[in-house]
Amino acid sequence: MESPRKVAFCGLGIMGAPMAENLERAGFEVSGWTRTASRSPTSTPADAAEGADVLVTMVPDSPEVESVLFGPDGAAAALAPGALVIDMSTIAPGAARSIGERLEGEGLAFLEAPVSGSRPKAEDGTLTIMVGGAAADLERARPLFEAMGERIVHVGPRGHGQLAKLLTNTMGAIHAVALAESVVVARRAGLDPEAFLEVAAGSAGNSTVLGLKGRPMFDERYEPLFKLEHMLKDVRHCIAEARAQGVELRLATMVEPIYAAAAAAGHAESDFAAVVTAV
Amino acid sequence: MESPRKVAFCGLGIMGAPMAENLERAGFEVSGWTRTASRSPTSTPADAAEGADVLVTMVPDSPEVESVLFGPDGAAAALAPGALVIDMSTIAPGAARSIGERLEGEGLAFLEAPVSGSRPKAEDGTLTIMVGGAAADLERARPLFEAMGERIVHVGPRGHGQLAKLLTNTMGAIHAVALAESVVVARRAGLDPEAFLEVAAGSAGNSTVLGLKGRPMFDERYEPLFKLEHMLKDVRHCIAEARAQGVELRLATMVEPIYAAAAAAGHAESDFAAVVTAV
Repeated sequence: MESPRKVAFCGLGIMGAPMAENLERAGFEVSGWTRTASRSPTSTPADAAEGADVLVTMVPDSPEVESVLFGPDGAAAALAPGALVIDMSTIAPGAARSIGERLEGEGLAFLEAPVSGSRPKAEDGTLTIMVGGAAADLERARPLFEAMGERIVHVGPRGHGQLAKLLTNTMGAIHAVALAESVVVARRAGLDPEAFLEVAAGSAGNSTVLGLKGRPMFDERYEPLFKLEHMLKDVRHCIAEARAQGVELRLATMVEPIYAAAAAAGHAESDFAAVVTAV
Repeated sequence: MESPRKVAFCGLGIMGAPMAENLERAGFEVSGWTRTASRSPTSTPADAAEGADVLVTMVPDSPEVESVLFGPDGAAAALAPGALVIDMSTIAPGAARSIGERLEGEGLAFLEAPVSGSRPKAEDGTLTIMVGGAAADLERARPLFEAMGERIVHVGPRGHGQLAKLLTNTMGAIHAVALAESVVVARRAGLDPEAFLEVAAGSAGNSTVLGLKGRPMFDERYEPLFKLEHMLKDVRHCIAEARAQGVELRLATMVEPIYAAAAAAGHAESDFAAVVTAV
């Protein structure tokens, strides 16, 4: 099979826009579509998909993936038989499995490939990409993934990429609340923020979230690198998925209402560092 | 004031033994004492302290610090006036403040200097050292700290070093439970451990704890690098200290009984990775 040349990219948000740019920079012919009409290069997903070898979706959740693929002027019907659909959104593993089955029924291949890294890594092309699906489809997609990410891992069959993403994002969500609680105590006790963040970075409590969100939490600055409402969605999917496996996630279940409270108080579109406002 | 030459080191456990060895390697004359008589180079803390410029304590908690310093054959009375006591244990900030006051009353200087890094970093001399106390005392202690650590931070006045340590360790304790929950779900769902740990290391859920404890949790191997009962103690001190500041730590309060259950089930002296057995 020939290497893909023409890529349709649906979802040009905080993550999708820089990812699509990296594909263009790597020499792919990219045809974009996004929901906000004023920012969309094409008028429908079907227009974007016309003649594409690969379609990438990067949208908030499974209803949006389904709408892009199967809604009015959806992309699936516009793709040539044998084209590959790669959903890079974070959605429930069960939804990924059923979308994959439906696409296969229409003669299309499907990979799930959720990413980790938020906007700076999307811009630098250094995302972690968690692939679920057939190995042959991953090889077909590899040139695209290499333009967008630096750690490309075949986690397993369809569903396993999404599950890994939900579990790791939920750990991040919990780390952010643990950090927020520390920040609140440190502030009350009059600890120097610089000194605290410096020792924390060299401590058993260090984390990716500490490095990215420690300073913003002390400074109360919440410009979104990853929106709080998306983190809340991922935590909810993770709780549901674990429950389907017979596991009650106690920490995830405890942080969920804290994120929900921050969202309800006006921080849905803030960075998830704003969870500190609800601690 | 002259640079210290002779160091008494009380507490030669998992952490203390390699720390004392690094002091010797750096040219200090070290006189050690430890509670287990068969492993102790001297017979009492007072013997060890005889003629020392600096006394270091590295023991489980404040009752042990107080016993080493002020108990029968305690070290404090054996030290020359003006000698410096450095407690590198992790204890409650309030206890550190009162021990410091009592030592000052006896003509001795005092620094708190709890460490982060567990055994491998104690061996490599790459600990993070969180210093609370007077800047002049820190300068006096710096040659010792440089032999044991690589990140030496003056967090603030007495109590602030201990508070930073409790907050960062408690974040680590929470991260371990969050990781344990993920490991349990990953196992149930049949996720490949290697793939999961690889993507997690590149994800928003990455942490120092993930790197150190992810593999041991999947492998159910709990040789102690940092004992679970010590983590439990730190979490309890942290909850109490936050409460004294008027803050209820919800996540810490949720993980405390999980550690307690693992300890009660026989894992008190296991590594804190064994918390996965109680999730």
